[in-house]
Amino acid sequence: MARYKLILAYDGTAYNGYQRQAIKHSVQHELEAALRKIGWQGKTLTASGRTDSGVHAHGQVLHLDLDWKHSTETLLTALNAFLPDDIAALDAKEVDEGFHARYSALSRTYRYQLYVQKHRNPLIDRFAWRVTVRPDLELMNLESRDLLGEHDFIAFGKALNQTGTTIRKIYQAEWTETSFGMDFTIKGNAFLNHMVRRIVWVLVHVGSGMMPRGAVIKGFETGYAGTVALAPSRGLTLMKVDYGEEIN
Amino acid sequence: MARYKLILAYDGTAYNGYQRQAIKHSVQHELEAALRKIGWQGKTLTASGRTDSGVHAHGQVLHLDLDWKHSTETLLTALNAFLPDDIAALDAKEVDEGFHARYSALSRTYRYQLYVQKHRNPLIDRFAWRVTVRPDLELMNLESRDLLGEHDFIAFGKALNQTGTTIRKIYQAEWTETSFGMDFTIKGNAFLNHMVRRIVWVLVHVGSGMMPRGAVIKGFETGYAGTVALAPSRGLTLMKVDYGEEIN
Repeated sequence: MARYKLILAYDGTAYNGYQRQAIKHSVQHELEAALRKIGWQGKTLTASGRTDSGVHAHGQVLHLDLDWKHSTETLLTALNAFLPDDIAALDAKEVDEGFHARYSALSRTYRYQLYVQKHRNPLIDRFAWRVTVRPDLELMNLESRDLLGEHDFIAFGKALNQTGTTIRKIYQAEWTETSFGMDFTIKGNAFLNHMVRRIVWVLVHVGSGMMPRGAVIKGFETGYAGTVALAPSRGLTLMKVDYGEEIN
Repeated sequence: MARYKLILAYDGTAYNGYQRQAIKHSVQHELEAALRKIGWQGKTLTASGRTDSGVHAHGQVLHLDLDWKHSTETLLTALNAFLPDDIAALDAKEVDEGFHARYSALSRTYRYQLYVQKHRNPLIDRFAWRVTVRPDLELMNLESRDLLGEHDFIAFGKALNQTGTTIRKIYQAEWTETSFGMDFTIKGNAFLNHMVRRIVWVLVHVGSGMMPRGAVIKGFETGYAGTVALAPSRGLTLMKVDYGEEIN
């Protein structure tokens, strides 16, 4: 029996989020079913964190204890053969038994994709939020800089449990142009529930002149960011989870 | 009654190609159903050409005659409201009654996407062919140059009817690097059935050392290109159809 770290990618469109639920279709459920077919007998899998319904992942991380006699390449091939088309394991490696996908994680990086078009484009729409008016990228980047550092993010999300802290530290928050719109990259030690989507909602509204510059700071000061909705889950992808000295 | 030119985008994953068939699910069937809901009474739609099962489009062009009293913007909005999520009309405009989506077309441009990864990636796999070994881009570009100009492409496809010519003219054939692999862009006056996918199959095999440099020329000379399979449809997208002086 050894501990393995798995890197998972999924197209979240068809799923009610990462976490297994009683009735609904989840990524975790599919992964556990595939793992059982290759001999895993654990009760539950541990991921770096949950992703919401419809959110995608390029680098979700999990750990599991498994009795496996072949190479990790063979493990990946076997696992991917049993997983549905919209989920795949990209990498697997044996790790120290102290490794924990959630507690050992030092930071998470998310990407949010926007595209600017009057009409829906089915080749892009699956992984991006369509806006009809181009937001001001420089203005969004100015506003994004106010996110950097340690803040109480209560205005932008909820802790997973009632007693949990809502203080988080942001290392990077930046928009870049893409061929069809713009991408937002945000890296932080951890994120509250809905936090990235609420932040994106505010930034896009500031960039489009529908909220004043300074909305982020105001959110920190007042505990309310004026968000009446979230940016849609389709645009969000968990890109990477970092574990310090270990090479990812 | 006026003639309209429509630009259509679709994710072809769920469809048995563009053309309507007796039983199978087609893009044309969905589009005709949506058009009937907004008052179209024609019998059949005319597109610039068919796309195969699973092939995508970013700029498929159609013409139709329609009695429409509102703006073309309203036409698009109404049509997109009735179309399924994986099909959308990106543009509509009134054109001269002599305009014909197929016969007026001067050229078609296709893109083929490759990605290089040992394991399937669900965020890319929908629109790209996964290869496990990186082909030599420069070698593929050398081989691609042999496609340029007018040739008999009988080795790379079939004419749509028995008496049709298999001579086609290629204006552009070029590979470029992308963030996850490489893209092939090919522009020609018209294409035979399966022609782009057969060409890509040859180029990738040349670029990977599995077929010798000169395979394209040999195909022209012998009428047989040694293709035992086609590049998968998922990587192919019809990008653009050109109609000369008209601004697209």
